[in-house]
Amino acid sequence: MKDCKNIISTTNAPKPFGHYSQATTHNDLVFISGQLAANSDGSHGFENSFSSQVKQCLENVIEIIKEVGGSKESVLKITAYVVGVEHWEEFNNVYAEFFGSVYPARALVPVPALHNNYLIEIDAVASV
Amino acid sequence: MKDCKNIISTTNAPKPFGHYSQATTHNDLVFISGQLAANSDGSHGFENSFSSQVKQCLENVIEIIKEVGGSKESVLKITAYVVGVEHWEEFNNVYAEFFGSVYPARALVPVPALHNNYLIEIDAVASV
Amino acid sequence: MKDCKNIISTTNAPKPFGHYSQATTHNDLVFISGQLAANSDGSHGFENSFSSQVKQCLENVIEIIKEVGGSKESVLKITAYVVGVEHWEEFNNVYAEFFGSVYPARALVPVPALHNNYLIEIDAVASV
Repeated sequence: MKDCKNIISTTNAPKPFGHYSQATTHNDLVFISGQLAANSDGSHGFENSFSSQVKQCLENVIEIIKEVGGSKESVLKITAYVVGVEHWEEFNNVYAEFFGSVYPARALVPVPALHNNYLIEIDAVASV
Repeated sequence: MKDCKNIISTTNAPKPFGHYSQATTHNDLVFISGQLAANSDGSHGFENSFSSQVKQCLENVIEIIKEVGGSKESVLKITAYVVGVEHWEEFNNVYAEFFGSVYPARALVPVPALHNNYLIEIDAVASV
Repeated sequence: MKDCKNIISTTNAPKPFGHYSQATTHNDLVFISGQLAANSDGSHGFENSFSSQVKQCLENVIEIIKEVGGSKESVLKITAYVVGVEHWEEFNNVYAEFFGSVYPARALVPVPALHNNYLIEIDAVASV
């Protein structure tokens, strides 16, 4: 009944910037690390617009989920850490366009700052 | 063994303000979206006292859990995002009165601000 | 198939400061409450260095996991709430030394302040 914990690693999302995995799995649950708007080649996106950063973070999350056979539909819960609560509406618009007919549970958590002056970080729990 | 992911929706808690569900379920786990102190009729509660907002958020969380047959006892973990760490004691008092003999795991996370100037947002993981 | 939710309690980690358990379990998942750098005897560590606080928080998390038969290897996801994003590098260094060959999923969430002026709080999800 109990599966081994697995470490997920894909070259389609940025390598971890520190001592963590892109995601871990336990049975059919997937725990995705906080994703910043970096590109899969490791180049930074902290100078990109807020909207662009939201989209890149979400794409990174989904690329990691794809590595274990999932998709947008697999996402159970998104937590978005946002610098500047005034971005709420813009965040929601980009997010809605990205997820379309899929409505995961969600929390938007304003934070005072993020690593490398990124404007948003997104982590997630999914099932595959 | 694997159940479909389900989207939870109840009229006993406020409708989502953005592109998310009140909660999702996977097998017997429930992931509840961040709840603000809005009422189930959609009216806002951001002008209410901090204590009142804590109670309303918790009631929203539990109403969503009830929709899938759970109760306060079903809560595994609460994460409370609070504007103003000085509210810690007041938060804990209202929270203790609300949960009574039930002691979920918990994290209190101070944040610089919340959507619509709410003072607290609460999300949760539960099992039913 | 469905186990009862269990409340975890160990004297090897600080008692909860408020109305919560050190952790709850559901089947083989463990939800660990936000740990501050207090000692298991209840004495506070908020005057200790940032590095020292990181290590103490992580030790508290692992002591709680040990109570249900787990270890560092059991950790699926760490969320670290940090006062001052400028501590990122120092956090990562202490964290890497602590976890060694283990790479849980992780999110680092800057916060404006923490209870009792602590500099870091860490919660976790694990499987045992």
